[in-house]
Amino acid sequence: MNAQNKSITKRDEDFAKWYTDVVRSAHLCDYTSVKGCMAIEPNGYAIWEKMQDILDKKFKELGHTNVSMPLLIPENLLKKESELVEGFAPEVAWVTQGGSKKLEERLCIRPTSETLFCDYYKTHITSYRDLPMLYNQWCNVLRWERETRPFLRSREFLWQEGHTMHATSIEAEEETRKMAEVYKWFFHEILAIPSISGLKTEKEKFAGAEYTITNEALMYNGVALQAGTSHYFGQKFSKAYDVKFSNKDNKLEYAYQTSWGTTTRMIGGLIMVHSDDYGLVLPPKIAPKQVVIIPIGNSDEVDSLCEKVKDELNNNGITTYIDKTDKSPGFKFAEAEVNGIPVRIEIGARDLKENKVTFARRDTREKIVVDSNIDYVSYTKELLDTIQKDMYERALKRRDELTFTATNLTEMEEILNKQPGFIKADWCGKKECEEKIKEIRGCKSRCITEDKLITGKCVCCGSDAKHNVIWGIQY
Amino acid sequence: MNAQNKSITKRDEDFAKWYTDVVRSAHLCDYTSVKGCMAIEPNGYAIWEKMQDILDKKFKELGHTNVSMPLLIPENLLKKESELVEGFAPEVAWVTQGGSKKLEERLCIRPTSETLFCDYYKTHITSYRDLPMLYNQWCNVLRWERETRPFLRSREFLWQEGHTMHATSIEAEEETRKMAEVYKWFFHEILAIPSISGLKTEKEKFAGAEYTITNEALMYNGVALQAGTSHYFGQKFSKAYDVKFSNKDNKLEYAYQTSWGTTTRMIGGLIMVHSDDYGLVLPPKIAPKQVVIIPIGNSDEVDSLCEKVKDELNNNGITTYIDKTDKSPGFKFAEAEVNGIPVRIEIGARDLKENKVTFARRDTREKIVVDSNIDYVSYTKELLDTIQKDMYERALKRRDELTFTATNLTEMEEILNKQPGFIKADWCGKKECEEKIKEIRGCKSRCITEDKLITGKCVCCGSDAKHNVIWGIQY
Repeated sequence: MNAQNKSITKRDEDFAKWYTDVVRSAHLCDYTSVKGCMAIEPNGYAIWEKMQDILDKKFKELGHTNVSMPLLIPENLLKKESELVEGFAPEVAWVTQGGSKKLEERLCIRPTSETLFCDYYKTHITSYRDLPMLYNQWCNVLRWERETRPFLRSREFLWQEGHTMHATSIEAEEETRKMAEVYKWFFHEILAIPSISGLKTEKEKFAGAEYTITNEALMYNGVALQAGTSHYFGQKFSKAYDVKFSNKDNKLEYAYQTSWGTTTRMIGGLIMVHSDDYGLVLPPKIAPKQVVIIPIGNSDEVDSLCEKVKDELNNNGITTYIDKTDKSPGFKFAEAEVNGIPVRIEIGARDLKENKVTFARRDTREKIVVDSNIDYVSYTKELLDTIQKDMYERALKRRDELTFTATNLTEMEEILNKQPGFIKADWCGKKECEEKIKEIRGCKSRCITEDKLITGKCVCCGSDAKHNVIWGIQY
Repeated sequence: MNAQNKSITKRDEDFAKWYTDVVRSAHLCDYTSVKGCMAIEPNGYAIWEKMQDILDKKFKELGHTNVSMPLLIPENLLKKESELVEGFAPEVAWVTQGGSKKLEERLCIRPTSETLFCDYYKTHITSYRDLPMLYNQWCNVLRWERETRPFLRSREFLWQEGHTMHATSIEAEEETRKMAEVYKWFFHEILAIPSISGLKTEKEKFAGAEYTITNEALMYNGVALQAGTSHYFGQKFSKAYDVKFSNKDNKLEYAYQTSWGTTTRMIGGLIMVHSDDYGLVLPPKIAPKQVVIIPIGNSDEVDSLCEKVKDELNNNGITTYIDKTDKSPGFKFAEAEVNGIPVRIEIGARDLKENKVTFARRDTREKIVVDSNIDYVSYTKELLDTIQKDMYERALKRRDELTFTATNLTEMEEILNKQPGFIKADWCGKKECEEKIKEIRGCKSRCITEDKLITGKCVCCGSDAKHNVIWGIQY
């Protein structure tokens, strides 16, 4: 029956291979002849489009507008902010030739666009009346990564990057928090992923930012994924790029800046949190197709009910299609399963004679036989809501099971060797301790929590602790 | 009163300067520190978003799906199709360094993506059952142009590129025609631009295509703009890139291919066809904001009517906002005018006492006083329809006025020296004649018409003519 997913490795056997198998079987993306760059296929791109729709609407509700800045950054412009260039220079791609001519100044392909936005804002902001400037762009960026993995880490990826300028630090800091909240909302409400948000440490924050608020999610295998960060720059970049405005007191002041972004790696997160041995599992709110109707046997009655249900559901905002291909029903079931369609409705001639129709949930693979005369819209809506809620609860339970506490390095090492996860531990605030902890299987600080201290002593050096921190191995 | 557009050069005085002034005054795009690359600003990008919405919906209705292919093309891959590489190699940008390492093989930034799609299709098409493959992508491309102009010609631009593979030439040719029709529909119905579609000559067709169907529009100044082309490749690329499938007779065959694209240069076309000395003029169907309501004077009655009208219009699919800023009404009028808002509704306290409200059309600048108790939805809808229709008619009239016929080179030269436009003339089909005609102010063949011959003799060499052709100077 499961012709399609015969090839999927068991998740508990080899997680990395399972992940790649799901990506390939569900036709989400594929490798290309361009090293480290992926082709995002229709099923994968449709998820990205839905992510864009939902986030873009939210950004616009909050007053942001979209723009498009250049792909290329002249080397001189990039170099103006020293921390940024140190952070990104080792991983940018350089254009040195245009047409048949060698360029006088090389240009890098944007790894992020703070420089270009600052360069724009510099000539477009003169007075506090021009502020805030709340711009965002949806685009591709490139970072010359050595090791790549579909969706999670690739040289080119798609993202949105918001870049805003404000007249006061209070407003800019509020924007930084607000956008981190938007990402958290998106993870929880739409992707059914319970993320933890908090400050990054000095070592892990964005190059050049005063601080970074991150959203950290835990994958099924206990590895952490950072997705959705919001940065506060203060006046750092606006000083480097000379973005000044005359304030209400008619004095020249540097503007206060934020940036925030999230990427196609969220698709990787979705897979790693929710999917199973049968393929992709998608929360209904992000599934491009929410319901598939599969007719079984040929009869006018079956066909007309299929059409009726499809129309009713689509007219009520539930994205539904009928699989009318000439494949066998079993093959169609398996295909819908591997592609992660949240709900499958099986309408068969024999069942209809007994007034029966079968619903199948993708998340639990449960089959539910219902009366064929039900109200399909309200029944399906409720079922989709239940699936969305249950998926979140299961992800939360898994995360809680994989969240540990450690009071010293030996405990930390034992946990990580047995089963990686989030490890809560106190920390003194020193970079050296972070670096020492990283020696244990590359474990890094994920974010600073606001929870109270566990022992009050640093998990690494034993001196007085400043923060409770979540640690983990990352993608 | 027209504080904002004081700086707009008169269209009839200096068309090129007028164009740049409109682009800048309406905040559509700006130059950047990256030579030849533009920053598309909120007002410009909102037009692009609306173009994307409408076209994307149409593409999907016709069975296409979106994907994302890499930005970079390895030199070897590009070189496989000789005509393509000859056509594009002189104008691509080359990445030669990734991170701190010199690359073994240089990569070009995509000028177009036939190669990448073929490379993908090669490994994903095996049987006629896989066909057709109907993919499209919305992305940025880069061509190392020497002379650039906002929207019309820039090194980087945004576009959509459809790339499809079919089992038969009949299907592929039908797709080529169908997508050219979609562009024509979009120009006529949405952009209110009467385009002429037809075949490109051998000399002017897309590098590597068997043939190209183009849409040619005429700008207000009589210069032609090509926007929206659809190409048929036959098996040319599929042979070069080895895209084979087993057909219904179980024999291996090369697939039949098309591609079609349109770009942000359409925004330039919109401006050059419709705008005037007061700034941008937008057809209602492509205007991101269709109606602005301007309250005059402070009164509860004014405010409540403004809110009521705004809600009614928005609820009925007419995008409407109230200008509540503290600028003077006159300034607001001018701003709405320069930004091309199709309809302005002025609601004033004094007028309301006499049950009067004023509508102003952006296209004709006509003011219409109406009873304040009208049905705002139906009145506004009708007005927007009228504006859309009138704008098309005016553009058509202008195009017809600037469409000439020539029977020999002297006539052609006289026309072009007096007032450029579309010139209809017979042609023998020889490239040498095209090249000779190009010596007259760079005049090129725009497209082959299906009209009957005028004299039956080539406008250039006087030998027997094969086609009636439209000629013109181009952007």
